[in-house]
Amino acid sequence: MKVVFIGDIVGSIGRETVAAYLPRLKSKYKPDVVIANGENAAAGRGLTKSIYQELLFMGIDVVTMGNHTWDQKEILDFIDDEDFLIRPANFSSEAPGKGMTTISKNGVTLSVINLHGRTFLPPHDDPFAMSLELVEEARKLSPLIFVDFHAEATSEKIAMGWHLDGKVSVVVGTHTHVQTADSRILPEGTAYLTDAGMTGPYDGILGMKKEDVLYRFQTNMPTRFEVPKTGRAQLNGMFVEIDDRTGRALKIERIYINEDVPFQS
Amino acid sequence: MKVVFIGDIVGSIGRETVAAYLPRLKSKYKPDVVIANGENAAAGRGLTKSIYQELLFMGIDVVTMGNHTWDQKEILDFIDDEDFLIRPANFSSEAPGKGMTTISKNGVTLSVINLHGRTFLPPHDDPFAMSLELVEEARKLSPLIFVDFHAEATSEKIAMGWHLDGKVSVVVGTHTHVQTADSRILPEGTAYLTDAGMTGPYDGILGMKKEDVLYRFQTNMPTRFEVPKTGRAQLNGMFVEIDDRTGRALKIERIYINEDVPFQS
Amino acid sequence: MKVVFIGDIVGSIGRETVAAYLPRLKSKYKPDVVIANGENAAAGRGLTKSIYQELLFMGIDVVTMGNHTWDQKEILDFIDDEDFLIRPANFSSEAPGKGMTTISKNGVTLSVINLHGRTFLPPHDDPFAMSLELVEEARKLSPLIFVDFHAEATSEKIAMGWHLDGKVSVVVGTHTHVQTADSRILPEGTAYLTDAGMTGPYDGILGMKKEDVLYRFQTNMPTRFEVPKTGRAQLNGMFVEIDDRTGRALKIERIYINEDVPFQS
Amino acid sequence: MKVVFIGDIVGSIGRETVAAYLPRLKSKYKPDVVIANGENAAAGRGLTKSIYQELLFMGIDVVTMGNHTWDQKEILDFIDDEDFLIRPANFSSEAPGKGMTTISKNGVTLSVINLHGRTFLPPHDDPFAMSLELVEEARKLSPLIFVDFHAEATSEKIAMGWHLDGKVSVVVGTHTHVQTADSRILPEGTAYLTDAGMTGPYDGILGMKKEDVLYRFQTNMPTRFEVPKTGRAQLNGMFVEIDDRTGRALKIERIYINEDVPFQS
Ligand SMILES: [Fe+2]
Ligand SMILES: [Fe+2]
Ligand SMILES: [Fe+2]
Ligand SMILES: [Fe+2]
Ligand SMILES: [Fe+2]
Ligand SMILES: [Fe+2]
Ligand SMILES: [Fe+2]
Ligand SMILES: [Fe+2]
Repeated sequence: MKVVFIGDIVGSIGRETVAAYLPRLKSKYKPDVVIANGENAAAGRGLTKSIYQELLFMGIDVVTMGNHTWDQKEILDFIDDEDFLIRPANFSSEAPGKGMTTISKNGVTLSVINLHGRTFLPPHDDPFAMSLELVEEARKLSPLIFVDFHAEATSEKIAMGWHLDGKVSVVVGTHTHVQTADSRILPEGTAYLTDAGMTGPYDGILGMKKEDVLYRFQTNMPTRFEVPKTGRAQLNGMFVEIDDRTGRALKIERIYINEDVPFQS
Repeated sequence: MKVVFIGDIVGSIGRETVAAYLPRLKSKYKPDVVIANGENAAAGRGLTKSIYQELLFMGIDVVTMGNHTWDQKEILDFIDDEDFLIRPANFSSEAPGKGMTTISKNGVTLSVINLHGRTFLPPHDDPFAMSLELVEEARKLSPLIFVDFHAEATSEKIAMGWHLDGKVSVVVGTHTHVQTADSRILPEGTAYLTDAGMTGPYDGILGMKKEDVLYRFQTNMPTRFEVPKTGRAQLNGMFVEIDDRTGRALKIERIYINEDVPFQS
Repeated sequence: MKVVFIGDIVGSIGRETVAAYLPRLKSKYKPDVVIANGENAAAGRGLTKSIYQELLFMGIDVVTMGNHTWDQKEILDFIDDEDFLIRPANFSSEAPGKGMTTISKNGVTLSVINLHGRTFLPPHDDPFAMSLELVEEARKLSPLIFVDFHAEATSEKIAMGWHLDGKVSVVVGTHTHVQTADSRILPEGTAYLTDAGMTGPYDGILGMKKEDVLYRFQTNMPTRFEVPKTGRAQLNGMFVEIDDRTGRALKIERIYINEDVPFQS
Repeated sequence: MKVVFIGDIVGSIGRETVAAYLPRLKSKYKPDVVIANGENAAAGRGLTKSIYQELLFMGIDVVTMGNHTWDQKEILDFIDDEDFLIRPANFSSEAPGKGMTTISKNGVTLSVINLHGRTFLPPHDDPFAMSLELVEEARKLSPLIFVDFHAEATSEKIAMGWHLDGKVSVVVGTHTHVQTADSRILPEGTAYLTDAGMTGPYDGILGMKKEDVLYRFQTNMPTRFEVPKTGRAQLNGMFVEIDDRTGRALKIERIYINEDVPFQS
């Protein structure tokens, strides 16, 4: 099974960039499944129902989330009805939504798990223990398992990679909005990348207008951050190929597209 | 002027890896100056005098530090005597050592500045304000300025890049021990990379034995982290070329060497 | 000189409580100066001009602030014009407002300093170094100096007490909204209290409606916190008497009033 | 049932202070049970077997712990064998020890629960959810339940008080080492105090030598903190009386003893 993953889609410019490149990525990588992190798709903060549907319409099969899951209140109204929208599984058991979903394409079944880190972040349930429970459940259906670990600290993300090496097909990090260069296949067969990066403005700060964020760092004064509507864009993500029988990763390739590093077909 | 930068050197295995590859890197990139982050060079924690001298002997010209600066107490005895050893400039004014140094090679002068981030990290003086003061001082000597910003958060590091774009030649991040893929030259001529990565064990967690760190994440129980003495290694860093007259960056290229991605001459 | 200090006034219920008790406190303690922390006076978040004037009209002489200083945007328009409104002095040098003021009453001059902690809080300039600079400046006018240290960690607050013991008349903490029981006069003559507590709802959580905050802790889901408009109230603060000639504290007494512990004249 | 609780005992000076005052406290309050937080009893860091036995020998019935539980490695050897030594219940399920114990005295049974906060602290399992599970278990034996919530933030501690109001007899906070003044009985019958304070040096910073901690805050340089062996001491704690039949708190009284506020029989 071939999978394309797209890192945190930020705002309308991020969605437009996906719309512009996804056809070319599909023709290049022939993915069976396309997964994207959508926690910033609605103007940088959360996800609305119409934007979720827009993402599906573009050809995204599964949407994962993160710390911005609840930024748009309306998600509370539809998250429990959507099969292919997941939020971190280690959120409180009181929270709406679910943390794992399963998708079958071309006769192959893949489980997708979303987890949240705890280092430098608000407290959540233990993602290491939780991951083992979910993997056990997923393996009843298929050994092909994709994990989006939404976390800040490189230590916690690399630890999750080793923790799940040989138990899942892919561990990819999201949240820092900067792609890391450390894509590899770990010794037991898990494809790993510390962070997939983001999809949206190329000249901002994590997708936000750079002047606003800079002002905050330079003065410690409050500002409202906004996603610019126009300007140069980037698309960050990853391609993985997984063995249909064993669930082992066969190939991992970073996707990193912007004006300095143009798309190559 | 051509500069090679080597990301956080971790333990004896990190130093051995530098010793093994630096001759090849010198023959490939012909650097005028070699800079390395040495905060983890002594068994993962700080720097001793003999290890500092070992780094100079290998051909490193300037050593920068970070949050581990004071891990080895003996540094208090020699940091004030060494011209090419700097620690973050925005440490307390009560702290020993200095945060900027200047080196001249082949008739060209380069200032090297070390700064420390404050997001997800202990409080230090304002690195944004401090950087402007140091840049003003450095520019009296030369427009070629290299900044190692030792910081955790991608937002703070990218903000520093934009903050100093056009004012310095290079802003490179260190501390997360994972190289990022976002090397670029910003519009006003500053070469930028969010994190250079680390040099040392390839199969650990930030250079530490993976079993120890994993145990911590899996149990929340204390453990002592150690750098493995043997095993596969990696070298992470960056090459930049700077215009001798204007101080603008002409070229930036990531250096990322391990068994999956071997050195290419 | 006699001083009454009132801990963080929260919302309209907090202001009404001050209005109800201040006459009685004045008749009991005969203060020359009344100081209050006003960072939560406007519905729990910041301070407006009309509320600032309301506080002065009630008989408060100096208003100090904290991390909520900028919550109401309109403060940017008047903070630079008001002599008796101060915000933490170790905010960025780019921030509006000032961190110290001086008031003379009955022939005696008192300087009031506001500082912000850095432990468990966003980074600010060094409050320990900054306090020494301000104390030096204040001492040119008078040895009577009152410090409101708005901080979270008990370690940092007690450290500030010892740091300034004998240099100022009073160090009182604010921000945790819970009064501590450790009022004392330190050996060199500085009156010290780790936290003065808050003035507002008695049955909330830090002055906010308890159901909202509880829901956050029980579910990790976002909620908007609000100050209840009605219900039982409390007033927390402190009385200190200072030697007019030496600036040494002569007496410190906690003020703690609620329905379980009624005001005693 | 009458209970005396003693806040974090720090070092040998803390243990000596307990030894000196406990007989007088027993004669004053006639407690059926004495509980103490012992996480700092061994030179400020953790607990050894001999010190645990010393505490029992003094007349302490149950010892609770906190973030310093594992500071002394030898606790791993005996924590599972001791019936009256508990550590936070929401530590990882992989951790040794237990988080609840039950003691019967004079025909009345009391459960003691230890929980750990998560705000400004490392991540642990959810103490709010965990508390409900433990309370349900404890209530099978007796409605008398005592909770030591080892936590930093006043918001989290007060939230726990309201969360358990009417479900347990007592919620007392520990960890900040400064006693708060807010002892009260909540509307549904739970005695509450945000922090009991500490027992040990009176002139230090959280029980540590003040010069060392001050140096850290003034310079950001590392120092080793030590508990002074001599000097003035304090004892902080709390007395509660609980209805034997209903488990409701009948009375709460803070215990706060030092040279400025001497013991009153
Ligand atoms: Fe994101
Ligand atoms: Fe995120
Ligand atoms: Fe570091
Ligand atoms: Fe490092
Ligand atoms: Fe505050
Ligand atoms: Fe406040
Ligand atoms: Fe403690
Ligand atoms: Fe503690």
